[in-house]
Amino acid sequence: MARAASMDDPVFTMENRDGASNILLVCEHASNHFPKAFGTLGLSAADRQAHIAWDPGALGLAKGLAARLDAGLFHANVSRLIYDLNRPPNAAGSMPAKSEVFEIPGNAVIAAAERLARTQAIYLPFHGALHAEIARRIALGRPPVIVTIHSFTPIYFGKKRAVEFGVIHDADPAYAVAVVQAAKAADGLKTELNEPYSAADQVTHTLRLQATPYGLTNVMLEIRNDLIATPQAEQAMADKLAPVLRSALSELQRGRHREELRAT
Amino acid sequence: MARAASMDDPVFTMENRDGASNILLVCEHASNHFPKAFGTLGLSAADRQAHIAWDPGALGLAKGLAARLDAGLFHANVSRLIYDLNRPPNAAGSMPAKSEVFEIPGNAVIAAAERLARTQAIYLPFHGALHAEIARRIALGRPPVIVTIHSFTPIYFGKKRAVEFGVIHDADPAYAVAVVQAAKAADGLKTELNEPYSAADQVTHTLRLQATPYGLTNVMLEIRNDLIATPQAEQAMADKLAPVLRSALSELQRGRHREELRAT
Repeated sequence: MARAASMDDPVFTMENRDGASNILLVCEHASNHFPKAFGTLGLSAADRQAHIAWDPGALGLAKGLAARLDAGLFHANVSRLIYDLNRPPNAAGSMPAKSEVFEIPGNAVIAAAERLARTQAIYLPFHGALHAEIARRIALGRPPVIVTIHSFTPIYFGKKRAVEFGVIHDADPAYAVAVVQAAKAADGLKTELNEPYSAADQVTHTLRLQATPYGLTNVMLEIRNDLIATPQAEQAMADKLAPVLRSALSELQRGRHREELRAT
Repeated sequence: MARAASMDDPVFTMENRDGASNILLVCEHASNHFPKAFGTLGLSAADRQAHIAWDPGALGLAKGLAARLDAGLFHANVSRLIYDLNRPPNAAGSMPAKSEVFEIPGNAVIAAAERLARTQAIYLPFHGALHAEIARRIALGRPPVIVTIHSFTPIYFGKKRAVEFGVIHDADPAYAVAVVQAAKAADGLKTELNEPYSAADQVTHTLRLQATPYGLTNVMLEIRNDLIATPQAEQAMADKLAPVLRSALSELQRGRHREELRAT
């Protein structure tokens, strides 16, 4: 693991760990940073700014949500083209050779040793630290609500996407359904369940790995990136979505409480 | 984490990591060792030998299987009464106050800080290292087959159990069903699916945390401990079960191959 040992950049950052909210925000595609240990994969500076390298706006929105909700935020500091932290190590998409219309020269052929080096340098430290934070909260009797924050490109393979706010679930749809209802009641966003992707597209790895095994309430959010293209727009979107996340969680908890009362 | 820092015993052991088999054996209840950092929980030496402290015979059987299958074996070195590694940190059974008819004085009242200390000293290192080994194999293109090895007491709350070999599944029943069929075809054991427990009893945490998120083939085995009560009996059981695990895996792979052919 010479490669792993030479990683001098921190792979992840935990912010506001002791925030009052049970919500724990996760942003796997927060960064378009290419650590020296793995190079730039033969991409131009412009390509490394494109949506293939990260989810533009997602980190700014996540920070805005963390501040408004007083929630913890766990985010990556490495481009998804080096390792896509929302994919398992054997998925083609974890180190993609092609992303949308872009070829990734440095990922065209990846030897097993290189695949292992990236897994050990990036995937394991990120998910190990996230698991430790989740287990810490569970042990202390405050199981977290996992909310992953993503953005998607408005034009994909030349086609315009109408959806503005996608709400995606893994095995347990409850919070996702509540978020969609709260969003439709509250704001003017074109909100859809399981758009522009769903769990069937293998895009819920973080939820599957970190939330589902513990039965944690969870959801994956996708915001169209042209709506969070400036710091001002990120904060305006956080103003819109923070109350949606909060009221959907209250509604879900009220519903569960009613069910418990009925069951007794 | 003064407690965690003072753990001088290794929490887990990995044996035969580079064995030829894709099977990775896991034995969470292998040991009745009580590390100094956490004391003996007020139990007598006799109680610390009983089935409540560990799964007697499970480690000997697992070592016998590892040798016969040339499989890796990952096992714990800490009593399940300090931390039951097949339970999440918030389960009452992770640090049980009572186990069958035995009271566990040192677990009668566990402060949140103590619960966290045990989680961080035992649960996280064990499952973190197991996750790293699984991710390593996945990254190298050899996803493991997870087989957890347990034993159960022949008399539970005063009642005799007739089942001798229990085969338990989590979300994916395929390998468990194949193991039951192979066992019934091969030997004289009273074999049952999802006996004496099932996933509904919350006993499949390791499978749920480590195997299900990756879609790995997996099964949990339970052997009645009076059948593996001596080193000779452990090895005789390994002689019986190694071909069962091997032929069930071949049968499963043949079935999947047939399905793939039909689908093309």
